[in-house]
Amino acid sequence: MQINIEDATALAVATLSRHGLSADHARQVADHLVEAAMCGHEFASLPRILAIVEELRAKASGATPIRVAREDGAFAHVDGGDNIAYVVSVFAVDKAVEIARRHGVGIVTANNTWFSGRCAHYVERGARAGFVTMHTTNTTARVAPYGGADRIMGTNPFAIAFPSSPDPLVVDIGTSSITWGDVVLCRTKGEPLPPQVAVDGAGEPTRDPQSALEGAFMPWGGARGSALSLAVQLLGVLAGSAPVVRGTADFGLFFLAVDPARIAPGRDFHAQVAELRRIVASSRPAAGGTRVRVPGDGSHSRRAEALRAGTINVDEKVYARLLELSR
Amino acid sequence: MQINIEDATALAVATLSRHGLSADHARQVADHLVEAAMCGHEFASLPRILAIVEELRAKASGATPIRVAREDGAFAHVDGGDNIAYVVSVFAVDKAVEIARRHGVGIVTANNTWFSGRCAHYVERGARAGFVTMHTTNTTARVAPYGGADRIMGTNPFAIAFPSSPDPLVVDIGTSSITWGDVVLCRTKGEPLPPQVAVDGAGEPTRDPQSALEGAFMPWGGARGSALSLAVQLLGVLAGSAPVVRGTADFGLFFLAVDPARIAPGRDFHAQVAELRRIVASSRPAAGGTRVRVPGDGSHSRRAEALRAGTINVDEKVYARLLELSR
Repeated sequence: MQINIEDATALAVATLSRHGLSADHARQVADHLVEAAMCGHEFASLPRILAIVEELRAKASGATPIRVAREDGAFAHVDGGDNIAYVVSVFAVDKAVEIARRHGVGIVTANNTWFSGRCAHYVERGARAGFVTMHTTNTTARVAPYGGADRIMGTNPFAIAFPSSPDPLVVDIGTSSITWGDVVLCRTKGEPLPPQVAVDGAGEPTRDPQSALEGAFMPWGGARGSALSLAVQLLGVLAGSAPVVRGTADFGLFFLAVDPARIAPGRDFHAQVAELRRIVASSRPAAGGTRVRVPGDGSHSRRAEALRAGTINVDEKVYARLLELSR
Repeated sequence: MQINIEDATALAVATLSRHGLSADHARQVADHLVEAAMCGHEFASLPRILAIVEELRAKASGATPIRVAREDGAFAHVDGGDNIAYVVSVFAVDKAVEIARRHGVGIVTANNTWFSGRCAHYVERGARAGFVTMHTTNTTARVAPYGGADRIMGTNPFAIAFPSSPDPLVVDIGTSSITWGDVVLCRTKGEPLPPQVAVDGAGEPTRDPQSALEGAFMPWGGARGSALSLAVQLLGVLAGSAPVVRGTADFGLFFLAVDPARIAPGRDFHAQVAELRRIVASSRPAAGGTRVRVPGDGSHSRRAEALRAGTINVDEKVYARLLELSR
């Protein structure tokens, strides 16, 4: 069903506040989730509130304020105070930008936080402030290394955005052959997984979602994708996670911001990014194709369309459940 | 044929010096190439001298000294002075490490250089100095974006190494479905390319190496690999290359060094990397496999074996040609 953007945001804020988030945090998370819906990432949007509420209910103790625990040179470490990563990540990327304003470059690591959100959201934020922004996070161990059957790595996203106009160029890739969200969705719908994306607890290939959740997902991109995932895993360790992440917290978040005006003075980097985007978008499609896509631009145009329409799509059952939870 | 390591190095130095490299640069390039041979990367080893000599002969003017053109905060830009990137990259990674010693973090960009070498060599160097080290470079346009048929991106490697003992954990991945070297090798041997790695100049799939060189290679890893390649391309633009690289120079090299002792004081990051390596290496192999590999560890063990044996493998024809060129 189509819901008015303001109404959807208000419902999200009400539900999150009702279950323990502060008004400010609830608003930040709601904006993030509604934007995900506008960009067409349905599972990363309002349905996430159900999982967030479950997590909030399970928490034994409350969160403490997010704070810069350590700052040294062009680096800072953020203690997330057991707050949700949607909020901690915005704090951290803003801090990386602040450091990059001073030093040309800023790295911020963060931990003591949970869940992770849509990484494009954070790097796009940094890029809109004018900075090349990179972000990685390791997550709950669900993915086996290439050639393996044990879950060791998270779905470990890698994201980077480059400032340009009218919108930044945004790369946001997961390093698992399937997302946790998609597996849960298949389980809910009673559908099998695609072939070759998971093994069960005994290490045998499976297309059953529940068996995959008990076993391991396969990494995306074979040996190379697995190597990239391992790199993201280790950047997470650098940020303060354990080598292997058990549970939904203990992620290690890594942020890098670079000021192109300091790195490349006298050149219009924004225009160069726009030029490469134009070259890619106007290049010849491969046989059978109609056009070549620029990473992230589909999200930008879907968001613009949603803003024009003033509505987002929300699953009816999810909407009904949120109404219940918000009371 | 097996050649004594000292003899192979001396032959490489003699050939490179004879065609215009200084004694110091010739020695650095020779060490890089001989190490590549030890690590089992045959095409990236002594055969590269043939292409380097060709490039040196084609150059109209001589190189100027490599220099730090700009230094500002936690960042520096290196003007390669039209020297070979094997040498410029070592200069740049050492500079990134030097900055990271001061600021905790260092970024160095470099341009005005040619060819690129084995990226693992540079990031491993930074990691052996104790720093998490990342390196990317864009290269001559040979790869089409996902869904496209025009060559826009280079084979654009992404490399990162994490300090540990006894060796760093090294990730070094290309973002093309096939390397330029492998295509040239297939042409030389008169063998067809694997299916689905290239299109010809008309945008039609081809398995003919020459047609692929005139057309475009496909990116590795579909839309996600293509997005990563585009990110590497743009980091190259940030470093001073044009949006699309024509010819063998004008690459943009990006280096990042991070001091784990400053980021994670009180934790033994080297030990944590070793712990994750152990967990991966000892994890259950997938059905049909025998063991799970850790990225880069194959290179480490082949190098150790070559050092024990004291020899490297060199193709007889290449060896004969190098003897001629060295005179």
